[in-house]
Amino acid sequence: MQITILAAGQGKRMNSRLPKVLQPIAGQAMLGHVLTTSRKLGPRTLCVVYGHGGDQVRAALDAPDIAWAEQAQQLGTGHAVQQAMPWLGDEGAVLVLYGDVPLIRAQTLRDLVEAAGSSRMALLTVKLADPKGYGRIVRDLEGRVASIVEEKDASAAEKAIREVNTGILCAPGSLLRAWLGRLQNNNAQGEFYLTDVIAMAVAEGVEVVTQQPAHEWEVLGVNNKAQLAELERIHQRNQADALLEAGVTLLDPTRIDIRGELICGRDVEIDVGCVFEGRVELADGVKIGAHCVLKDVKVGADSVIKPFCHFESAEIGAAGVLGPYARLRPGTVLAEDVHIGNFVEVKNCQIAAHSKANHLTYLGDATIGSRVNVGAGVITCNYDGANKFRTIIEDDAFIGSDAQLVAPVCVGKGATIGAGTTLTQDAPADALTISRTRQLSLTGWVRPVKVKKE
Amino acid sequence: MQITILAAGQGKRMNSRLPKVLQPIAGQAMLGHVLTTSRKLGPRTLCVVYGHGGDQVRAALDAPDIAWAEQAQQLGTGHAVQQAMPWLGDEGAVLVLYGDVPLIRAQTLRDLVEAAGSSRMALLTVKLADPKGYGRIVRDLEGRVASIVEEKDASAAEKAIREVNTGILCAPGSLLRAWLGRLQNNNAQGEFYLTDVIAMAVAEGVEVVTQQPAHEWEVLGVNNKAQLAELERIHQRNQADALLEAGVTLLDPTRIDIRGELICGRDVEIDVGCVFEGRVELADGVKIGAHCVLKDVKVGADSVIKPFCHFESAEIGAAGVLGPYARLRPGTVLAEDVHIGNFVEVKNCQIAAHSKANHLTYLGDATIGSRVNVGAGVITCNYDGANKFRTIIEDDAFIGSDAQLVAPVCVGKGATIGAGTTLTQDAPADALTISRTRQLSLTGWVRPVKVKKE
Amino acid sequence: MQITILAAGQGKRMNSRLPKVLQPIAGQAMLGHVLTTSRKLGPRTLCVVYGHGGDQVRAALDAPDIAWAEQAQQLGTGHAVQQAMPWLGDEGAVLVLYGDVPLIRAQTLRDLVEAAGSSRMALLTVKLADPKGYGRIVRDLEGRVASIVEEKDASAAEKAIREVNTGILCAPGSLLRAWLGRLQNNNAQGEFYLTDVIAMAVAEGVEVVTQQPAHEWEVLGVNNKAQLAELERIHQRNQADALLEAGVTLLDPTRIDIRGELICGRDVEIDVGCVFEGRVELADGVKIGAHCVLKDVKVGADSVIKPFCHFESAEIGAAGVLGPYARLRPGTVLAEDVHIGNFVEVKNCQIAAHSKANHLTYLGDATIGSRVNVGAGVITCNYDGANKFRTIIEDDAFIGSDAQLVAPVCVGKGATIGAGTTLTQDAPADALTISRTRQLSLTGWVRPVKVKKE
Repeated sequence: MQITILAAGQGKRMNSRLPKVLQPIAGQAMLGHVLTTSRKLGPRTLCVVYGHGGDQVRAALDAPDIAWAEQAQQLGTGHAVQQAMPWLGDEGAVLVLYGDVPLIRAQTLRDLVEAAGSSRMALLTVKLADPKGYGRIVRDLEGRVASIVEEKDASAAEKAIREVNTGILCAPGSLLRAWLGRLQNNNAQGEFYLTDVIAMAVAEGVEVVTQQPAHEWEVLGVNNKAQLAELERIHQRNQADALLEAGVTLLDPTRIDIRGELICGRDVEIDVGCVFEGRVELADGVKIGAHCVLKDVKVGADSVIKPFCHFESAEIGAAGVLGPYARLRPGTVLAEDVHIGNFVEVKNCQIAAHSKANHLTYLGDATIGSRVNVGAGVITCNYDGANKFRTIIEDDAFIGSDAQLVAPVCVGKGATIGAGTTLTQDAPADALTISRTRQLSLTGWVRPVKVKKE
Repeated sequence: MQITILAAGQGKRMNSRLPKVLQPIAGQAMLGHVLTTSRKLGPRTLCVVYGHGGDQVRAALDAPDIAWAEQAQQLGTGHAVQQAMPWLGDEGAVLVLYGDVPLIRAQTLRDLVEAAGSSRMALLTVKLADPKGYGRIVRDLEGRVASIVEEKDASAAEKAIREVNTGILCAPGSLLRAWLGRLQNNNAQGEFYLTDVIAMAVAEGVEVVTQQPAHEWEVLGVNNKAQLAELERIHQRNQADALLEAGVTLLDPTRIDIRGELICGRDVEIDVGCVFEGRVELADGVKIGAHCVLKDVKVGADSVIKPFCHFESAEIGAAGVLGPYARLRPGTVLAEDVHIGNFVEVKNCQIAAHSKANHLTYLGDATIGSRVNVGAGVITCNYDGANKFRTIIEDDAFIGSDAQLVAPVCVGKGATIGAGTTLTQDAPADALTISRTRQLSLTGWVRPVKVKKE
Repeated sequence: MQITILAAGQGKRMNSRLPKVLQPIAGQAMLGHVLTTSRKLGPRTLCVVYGHGGDQVRAALDAPDIAWAEQAQQLGTGHAVQQAMPWLGDEGAVLVLYGDVPLIRAQTLRDLVEAAGSSRMALLTVKLADPKGYGRIVRDLEGRVASIVEEKDASAAEKAIREVNTGILCAPGSLLRAWLGRLQNNNAQGEFYLTDVIAMAVAEGVEVVTQQPAHEWEVLGVNNKAQLAELERIHQRNQADALLEAGVTLLDPTRIDIRGELICGRDVEIDVGCVFEGRVELADGVKIGAHCVLKDVKVGADSVIKPFCHFESAEIGAAGVLGPYARLRPGTVLAEDVHIGNFVEVKNCQIAAHSKANHLTYLGDATIGSRVNVGAGVITCNYDGANKFRTIIEDDAFIGSDAQLVAPVCVGKGATIGAGTTLTQDAPADALTISRTRQLSLTGWVRPVKVKKE
């Protein structure tokens, strides 16, 4: 079986520099969705017909299994499939898909391919409440497909037909090649229409069978941003329903966004307004508070993520307590029972078990031991304006509030750093290290007074 | 009047370690909702039939007014009610409720109990657009209930009946006891069905009357997370509608979550994406900005809460200005006209009128007077690694930016603390207190240069 | 053409101190919306009939082009228009609008005024699925308007009429004046009804024509907070649809709030949960992350705003990188490629190109040059308790972490400020300036131990 995906359209109504098929649904290009689905069918050949913004499209989605066929001029869907034919063999069926129909399901396509078999043409059709504008499936008295009649050519009776053509079809390669060779463009648009091959099949007595998708949204196409937003919401709701089905508690299934893969253990609970990007894994019993944004994150069992957290490329151990307003940046690896509190930023740090940094802190490029207490306002000065250096904090250290750890620097095991200390040299284990000036009170001092502006 | 609540089901389709009746709606166990509603009817006895996860259920919801009846094996709804009978008297009606039908309203139940009176059986029924799967209410020519016919036993005509049994019923105690004693389990499931008592009532000429709930959602049951989420949204929307009715301005009634009690004065305005937990009181004229999360909070009149605030167990006086990104933790009590600004965390502090802490500050375990100005980056060092101590800041003090107040410490009335001071001893009133080193410039100094990684 | 807007109603069901017509939709008083729409028609006179809360209404919306007519007692809609007549001339049509019907479109009104012409009465009518409660439009056999029949006076046949009166009408000034003079209040409410002029028109043979709005929501009135919320959502959705139409990518069109004007360039992308207030301009390629709140902000091309940002009255150059959790306050002007990171607050600062302040910083009243690096935890001490002063940081300066810049102070070109420095005097160009104490370790020191509470 072979697949060709038509992806050459400009999508003028998108009002965008980005080619239409690269417009994203759930953070992935529409064409990317169709490719992912296509691959599930294990096609012998996967040929993408590109055109407008072709360089961008190829750069974004190129892969060894894709044959790229250029359609330099857009002369209709039939013409587009013609460009793919050099890459497609006569043996086996050819399935025609569309780069701007992103939500088609693999099972629907499998059924269609099976219906086509080795000698039939199989059309994916759908019954619409309002079929206006679509090509109607006209059937003969035996119920066999007789023709497709476009809106403008339809009689009143034909206009009443609710079953319409989706454009997705599957046909034997050899027959398709022959029919495409005979397509004419003597129509108002001067285009070669793929639809015309159906009439050829009927005329030649090739059996034309139909299949319907399980859901109407599978065959919805995207031509503008309103349709893009509509499909985005359908897709998000489908993903939310799948999570509910798997036992995840969602406080509001219409207010969760998953742009990638969200893998949940048992008894995971996700509050309103959360956004998941990339690959996110939440182990058993994880609770995600309201309005969190997580990207490429792994969260250990029974960890609690409070509201307003934003994590990227981080790994959190079991029984962690994070947030609210915790910010984890790439390279953060937290062992079990680590607490990261409000207004704390962690970047490229490894923090061992039972350590805490609860308030207004910046930890960058640090290796932190177990049971370390990082006070409020502590800052690792990891950057001297030119290079970055690491800070080491060993087990059981206590870093007083507002201390600055000027890297490279090491705080020994069990060391205590006084509040406000600027630590420029290593602090010995078990000792108190401070840099402090005598406190002084000036009693004769007079407060500034408000100066009136003239 | 007596109530029994069936709460023994496992809820396998919930995919959860938590027993089904403990699954929360609006932060409260479903069974908790049914108990709250039950108590409004003032029943003589309130008997909960428990089974799966019984210890968890009892631990979560035990109360002096609940009689717990164990149903060790789940042998059907009739069997479940049988377990409750030892706690229920013959005198007065028995109302049968379900721990997984959480949104039933007290008024609906009062009407049902009244309809039952002292001698009738009263069924709560509902007309469904799609009655498929439910037991149909079959009536005789006079419109009296003749029987309940289950889906599998229903004729085509019976299947067309849209009035179905909800399972909620009310019957005289003595009769119910007698009927339950005669239940048979000779059916495919081998279970004792409560529904069978209806046929007994009809057979014995006991009048069977029906009542309908005002809303279909009152009788919706929960068997999986999708239904749980659906009821959560219905309940949230109901609460939002009640607030609108009371004159609260909600920018989006579909984007507010109330998990507990939200009490609003006049002219309260709540922006999108807010979450309220526990008991929250908002006095007249309070404005809550977008995406705030408030739990067990009291806010005084005309206070303005800006976006992204997160408060827990805090009390805010009148005319306060808080946020954005303000974090109040338990024990925070703010008098009138206190300003707490962005990235400021306050824990266990009492702050008197007209004081301000507007930027990047941690105030923990402090008592702060009136008209105090806390500069940016100020930190109360309340924890020495072992014990916590209090900071006292008296009226009219000015705390310079980035000062660290090492508790226990007191800043006197009208005192000024210089920027960057580490305050380890009390600061006298009206004086300027600093701990500062001479500023030094090294002009021959050469900046670090970027080292190339090999 | 002349317009009168009836805006005297109390709106008791609003449960508010704010007069009904000042209740906001999208942050603007309902009456303000009607005034804005009215002005698009260029009326000769714009007369607002005020009553309840009149001082508040006038104070909120007074403008040179408004004639204010007081309706001291609310004696009906006819009486209200009578109060406006002294300000309205006989020449030209008078269009009657309502301060609590805020979403009426200018095009609908233009069509109505045109239909009225110089001699006809034109009514705005609407066909409702459920017309209950509204005055029905009764037509004669030729389809001409014969009368308006109120619900209570309607026959069964009349009740079936779905076309109802919206109250919005347009009539020649001279005729309207004459009819109003003849209104009677001999009805149950003792009120003078504007509707009664229609019967007079019909009786006098004045042609009565009708127009329908393009959308039913245009004529929805607001009497309570539920209706206010409903219209808010309709209006927000309309605005979202207009953005989509213009090519903006909205991740969820039901989760964006625009209270003012949002002007977007090409390829703008807005994530979920964002709120825009005042006038916001987003140039080409701007990306706004989830849950941002922007008010009166201008964002340059290709800038990326990460989640949880809150900006007010700020200007951001091209290619900026802001957030997450960045807070820009009034007077902030950022040149191109400026980075403002997490938990950073900027107020009244001008920051030149390529400068960065990425972590936990407060910048207030500062002028910052190009390529400046502001370390984590840096604070400009701009306030001495009485006056505010400016900080100047020249090009290429490097401000070490946790430094305090006590204004007025200047950091010279290329200067480096050491971590933790309290800068009270100007720092010379190119030099390293620090204020630092010797680091000291006390090895005999014993850590505090936990004291047991008695």
